[in-house]
Amino acid sequence: MEIQPDLSWPAIVLVRPREEGNVGAAARAMANMGLERLILVEPAAALGPTARARAVGARPVLDRALRVATLREALAPFARVIATTSTRDRSLGIPLLAPRELPPFLAADPPGTPTALVFGSEVGGLTNDDLAYAGAVVTIPCAPAMPTLNLAQAVLVLTYELFVARATAVPAAQAGAATAQAEQAATAGEIDGLLDHAAALMQEVGFARDDTFAGALRDLRRLAARAAPDTRDVRILRGLCRRVQGALAKREA
Amino acid sequence: MEIQPDLSWPAIVLVRPREEGNVGAAARAMANMGLERLILVEPAAALGPTARARAVGARPVLDRALRVATLREALAPFARVIATTSTRDRSLGIPLLAPRELPPFLAADPPGTPTALVFGSEVGGLTNDDLAYAGAVVTIPCAPAMPTLNLAQAVLVLTYELFVARATAVPAAQAGAATAQAEQAATAGEIDGLLDHAAALMQEVGFARDDTFAGALRDLRRLAARAAPDTRDVRILRGLCRRVQGALAKREA
Repeated sequence: MEIQPDLSWPAIVLVRPREEGNVGAAARAMANMGLERLILVEPAAALGPTARARAVGARPVLDRALRVATLREALAPFARVIATTSTRDRSLGIPLLAPRELPPFLAADPPGTPTALVFGSEVGGLTNDDLAYAGAVVTIPCAPAMPTLNLAQAVLVLTYELFVARATAVPAAQAGAATAQAEQAATAGEIDGLLDHAAALMQEVGFARDDTFAGALRDLRRLAARAAPDTRDVRILRGLCRRVQGALAKREA
Repeated sequence: MEIQPDLSWPAIVLVRPREEGNVGAAARAMANMGLERLILVEPAAALGPTARARAVGARPVLDRALRVATLREALAPFARVIATTSTRDRSLGIPLLAPRELPPFLAADPPGTPTALVFGSEVGGLTNDDLAYAGAVVTIPCAPAMPTLNLAQAVLVLTYELFVARATAVPAAQAGAATAQAEQAATAGEIDGLLDHAAALMQEVGFARDDTFAGALRDLRRLAARAAPDTRDVRILRGLCRRVQGALAKREA
């Protein structure tokens, strides 16, 4: 049984997973977050149609998963082992991390350190013997009333944190461009034209006699500023004003 | 169908979920992260033993889930609507957020703003009509080779980010203060009332005969979602619609 650790990305090690559906869902979560190396320890269930259905496009991860008899064997090639538990047990005497603390913790290792993230069974988690392999433990924060995540959900949270940390480590400059629009944002002049048009219509229908007219116009301008309409929006709204004015004129004639 | 928005935590809205197992798993993820309010829109599947099994201890979330026929009805009580998509579509013209950007984005709303997080079907996600209700869109970063998360996994990532942000936030009262509004933000229901009013007016003045009527209405809805009008804005605009209709009726007489 040869285990080739991926030198750049952690392997996911599932210890005694009971339900093949969870293994399939974990494979999908791994693939979503760019991980490929799955190791199954003493798997209770064979991987059948349910596992494959839940894996969706991640079947290659399932197909290439390694099965080993013991956690010791699974972890042999890894220089950094991280375990997961649902409760924070300070008596372990090793660092207890939140998921968000995992990427910087791993980043402190020399580049290329072969790393494994170990998850326990749906029932009972990892034993003290299992935890003895780990150099640090991650606990996912949960509401006290419902503290246990599904196995695949736990895999997702940790791999999501790694994925985000890796993605944001490199360029990250584009954040400001996030609200880019396909249509050109309307200019202040176009918005002014729309507001003038609306004001004319408001006068035509008697709104301008109100004491509140000036306040209402100011509120509409604030609303327009907040809305950041594009040129198409302005076109539609001016078209509506025009139609209303046309209908008013026609009925008067 | 009465929807009581939770004023302190977002509601999760699942639009056309196909598989009851995913609804159950989403309920579990919500409970893990301390959320309770689940709304199902046009649910394709009844919630049977599979949903309950996947929910584990979160059955109360399932049992109390609201079922409504339309997204419009589901969103009526909410003043802040966040949609989720698997790809970043810049043409939407609304803020595109990463999951980690969601908590600070929501923190800018006045405290207690009723908020909904909307997730689409396992197949096809949200339609453009669905997305028109949203003031911002969140896309979960994924590996390009496997870009689509399971529905319950997507629910987990967003609620996990909210849970972590809330747990690490110290007092948190100041973030919202900068953009706090004197007037209450309009609910989606109030905005729908305004759009119905505008649509009636558009029909009255002949706009509805255009091929582009449906598209124009959707654009107006998107604009309204982006503008985040307060109740006073809605009052003014409805007053304007009413005046125009009154003027039309008078000239006809």
